[in-house]
Parts: sequence; C-alpha cells; structure tokens
Amino acid sequence: MSAPTTMSDAAPADALHPYALTLEYDGSGFSGWQRQPGRRTVEGTLLAAIAAVTGEEVRLTAAGRTDAGAHAHGQVAGCSLRRGWDPGRLRAALNAVLPADVVVVEAAPAPAGFHARLDAVARSYRYVVMSRGERSAVARQYAWRVRGPLDLAAMRRVAASLVGTHDFAAFGRSPRRGGSTTRRVDSVRLRQLALAERRGIAPQSAVVIEVVADAFLYGMMRSIAGALVAVGLGRMRGEQLAALVQRPPAQRPPLPVAPAHGLHQWRVTYPQTVTR
Amino acid sequence: MSAPTTMSDAAPADALHPYALTLEYDGSGFSGWQRQPGRRTVEGTLLAAIAAVTGEEVRLTAAGRTDAGAHAHGQVAGCSLRRGWDPGRLRAALNAVLPADVVVVEAAPAPAGFHARLDAVARSYRYVVMSRGERSAVARQYAWRVRGPLDLAAMRRVAASLVGTHDFAAFGRSPRRGGSTTRRVDSVRLRQLALAERRGIAPQSAVVIEVVADAFLYGMMRSIAGALVAVGLGRMRGEQLAALVQRPPAQRPPLPVAPAHGLHQWRVTYPQTVTR
Repeated sequence: MSAPTTMSDAAPADALHPYALTLEYDGSGFSGWQRQPGRRTVEGTLLAAIAAVTGEEVRLTAAGRTDAGAHAHGQVAGCSLRRGWDPGRLRAALNAVLPADVVVVEAAPAPAGFHARLDAVARSYRYVVMSRGERSAVARQYAWRVRGPLDLAAMRRVAASLVGTHDFAAFGRSPRRGGSTTRRVDSVRLRQLALAERRGIAPQSAVVIEVVADAFLYGMMRSIAGALVAVGLGRMRGEQLAALVQRPPAQRPPLPVAPAHGLHQWRVTYPQTVTR
Repeated sequence: MSAPTTMSDAAPADALHPYALTLEYDGSGFSGWQRQPGRRTVEGTLLAAIAAVTGEEVRLTAAGRTDAGAHAHGQVAGCSLRRGWDPGRLRAALNAVLPADVVVVEAAPAPAGFHARLDAVARSYRYVVMSRGERSAVARQYAWRVRGPLDLAAMRRVAASLVGTHDFAAFGRSPRRGGSTTRRVDSVRLRQLALAERRGIAPQSAVVIEVVADAFLYGMMRSIAGALVAVGLGRMRGEQLAALVQRPPAQRPPLPVAPAHGLHQWRVTYPQTVTR
C-alpha cells in the first residue's frame, strides 16, 4: 500500500489509519446502502457522521450493498482516516451523531488496504417469513407475511440441493458486469420460531432462512427466499428449483423474489489476518 | 342486559351484537391505548375504523390499557354493534381501513354484556431487555437496552418470590381509586434468546421476562421488569425486592420502572363460557 496516490492533498498512503466498522441498521427509513443524490441512504448517513466527527472526507467500502428496506446486523464498512483514533472513542463519537436507526456496534483497526467486500471470505443472511392469516403490525417492517401454511419439510429438502459450489445465474447477477455467477453456498438452514399460540388463532410462527456463502450475487438471497417459500406454499416443485442450480438455464427464469423488508444481513467473516 | 337504555335512538339492548376483537399493534406511533383529544391513540384509531366500516359509534372495553410506546400482540377489545356481522367479514373490513401499525387478528362473537377487562381471568405480558454495549438500531423500539451483564440466576431466584397472591402496592396502582392492590401472579419466567454471536463483539442476547397474572396494576409489569433488571445488574438486592411483596411498605418506594417500549402485552384469557 505504498503506491503513490493521485490525490494531491492526501497524506502518504502508509500514514493512513484503516478501520473496520461493524454496523447495525434498521433499513425501514433508508433507500438502501448506496449513496444516491437526494436520497437518505446508510452510506450517505455514515459518511456525514464520519465527516462531522473527524473532519475528513473518506471513501467507504462495504461488505455488501443492501436494498431499500433491508436490515443489517453485522454489515462491515471499511474506511481510512488520516488521523488515528482510539477505536472505542471513534465508535462512541460516531454513535453520538448517527441517527437512532443506524449504530456502529464495533470499530476496529484494520490492516493497510483493507477492503470490506474483497477481503470477506464468508457472509450470512437471514430471511424472516411469517405464515399467518392477517398482516402483522409489530413485524410489518421486519418479516414477510405470506398466507397459507409452509411445508417446512419440503423447503428443507430443496434447501439442501442449493448447498455447494454452483452457478447461481438463475438467482441474481454479479456485482461486476460479466462477472462470474458461481458461488459457494456453505449452508442453508431453516428454523421455525413459535411467536404465539393463542386459542382461536392459527398458530403464529416465523420461519428463519439462514444462508451462509462465500459471497452473494445481487438479489440472490431474496430469490432463494422467494423460491423456497414458493416451494413451501406448494406453488413450485422442489425439483424445479434444484434443477436451476444443477443445470442453469440460458435465460434467467422469473423466480419469485421475496420483498426486501424480510431480509436481514447478519454477519461477515474475514480471515484472521484481517481482523482479530 | 335487557335494562332500558337512556340513548333514545339505540336499539333495545337485547338486539345488540357483541364482538371480541383481538388486536396486535406497534405502539411506537401511538400515545397509548386510551383515547385522548388531539392525540393518536389505538382506541381512537379503532373507533374511527369501526365508524367508517359500520357507520356506528360504539363504546370500547379493553382488556388492559397500554402506555405510549408499549406494544400489543393479543389485546382484546369489546364492542356491541346494532347490525350483526359475519366475524371474518368484520375483521377484513376493519383491517382494510386500519393503518399498518394496528391489525385485528381475530373478530369473534361475544356473549351479551361482554366486558374485555372485567371478564378476563388471566393476562400475560412480556418484557424484552437487551444487554449490550451499544444501543440497538433494529430493536430500538421493541426492547430496553441496558449496559452490563445481567445475572440471570439472581433474577430467576427473586422472580420466584413474586409468584402467588400478594399485595403489589409497591409495584403499581389500582385502575380504580382506592381499589385493591392484591393480585395473583401465576408465573414469572425468564428466557434468554441468543440474537447474535459475533467474534469481537460481546454476545448479544435478549432476556424475555414473561409474567402471567389474574390482573395487573397500572405500571406493575414495568415495575417488575425494572426491579428484576436492577437485581440482574447488581443494583438492588433480591431480598429487598422480595420483601416488597411479603411486607408491602406503607409508602410506595421508588422502584425502577422499565421504559414502555420494551413492553409487549401478549395474551388475555377468558372463561370458556365467554369465548370459544
């Protein structure tokens, strides 16, 4: 990282102090991660907080860009500051100016050249589905409500067929034009959470779909959730879904895409050499 | 219920059609249950929906009045309509006009003279506490965040001392002036939910305190949660709390009161003769 920079006013690159910021945010009030003019975004909000606290204008890298309405519990953003900070003080100072719906849960020194997306070796996302007759008031921004019972056994059978290294072209697109659509899915787990059992009301339960992969295509987690729920509702056959990863079609099929508000970015893993 | 009514335009009372409405609401945007002029309340919102759908102005009874910011998953409201409705159609019609943060999860016919508060034989409330170093973005409106670890074993020991029929005067006040402050607490359960385990971050976990009682004093659940958390944080001795129900003091002591946004009204139980 001792290459000369083109920014005339920048300090030498080797004097920069790189940090990894772990973020939690409620996506309900944001137009997604990526900065856009005139829109309230997580990236724009974090950049403003960093500028307010440090007086520095920085560039951010992010482990993954989340869509409008999607939430994050362990998003990681990387930035480099010219002035070094005690990580705990940096975290506290940022949280003092950040709005209530975004918080830095950890700030840590990162190695020179740290890139939150390129350095990550695994990610996990969780998707929350509620099966109930009426919409939910409390969970309306955090879970997708579907009508009708979910056949969890059928969903688990087909989930297993997604595990492994496959061409997921049917499930999303590469962040780079023409980039590879092959990804390594380490696990797909489905857990059922009982939310309430009330006499006279159909049992209210939520199904949490957790996918761990080396990386995700754009839209991939929402397509996986949408397709698994379609199988659970009996609207799609499991073999049909399994075939899409075994023999990816030439044309991307119209897979059902689950809405963003049920999506929770959960965790990013880096090699031990990058973060402690 | 055949007593004459003083309202000249009312149908005879025995021609009324009583309903029990089970409600879920997100209290974040409401100034509590009870109707107040110029404030957005759940009662006012439901009354407006009933008027819009049925053209009738009714009175509501509620199993329990919730505070501003507190949530409900199984609140029960009673009302009597002059025109009879198919319960499923009534529920769907109300939900079509209610805002996103309140929903009728069930409408059921109720017996003549049904009163949602007086007829209830048991209630349960849940209180959610998160112990973590930083505030939460996603759970900020649904859980109380406290710093420092919670000694769950100490909380469970003292929780057991609350069970039974006691004078809970130290924990709240009667809904009626001069009314009894004796209540029968059937159970106090504490469950720990692991929300995330991330390397480098203190384990994030939530403790759910569930109390089942025949009835609650105003403020009682928030005082129980506040006191149990004070014990869990080592700021109050368990014996001190236990003594308050064994020998209620003449003057109400300044018990810590947990904030309303962690409070979730959960369920109301009626005798089988009242609801199916």
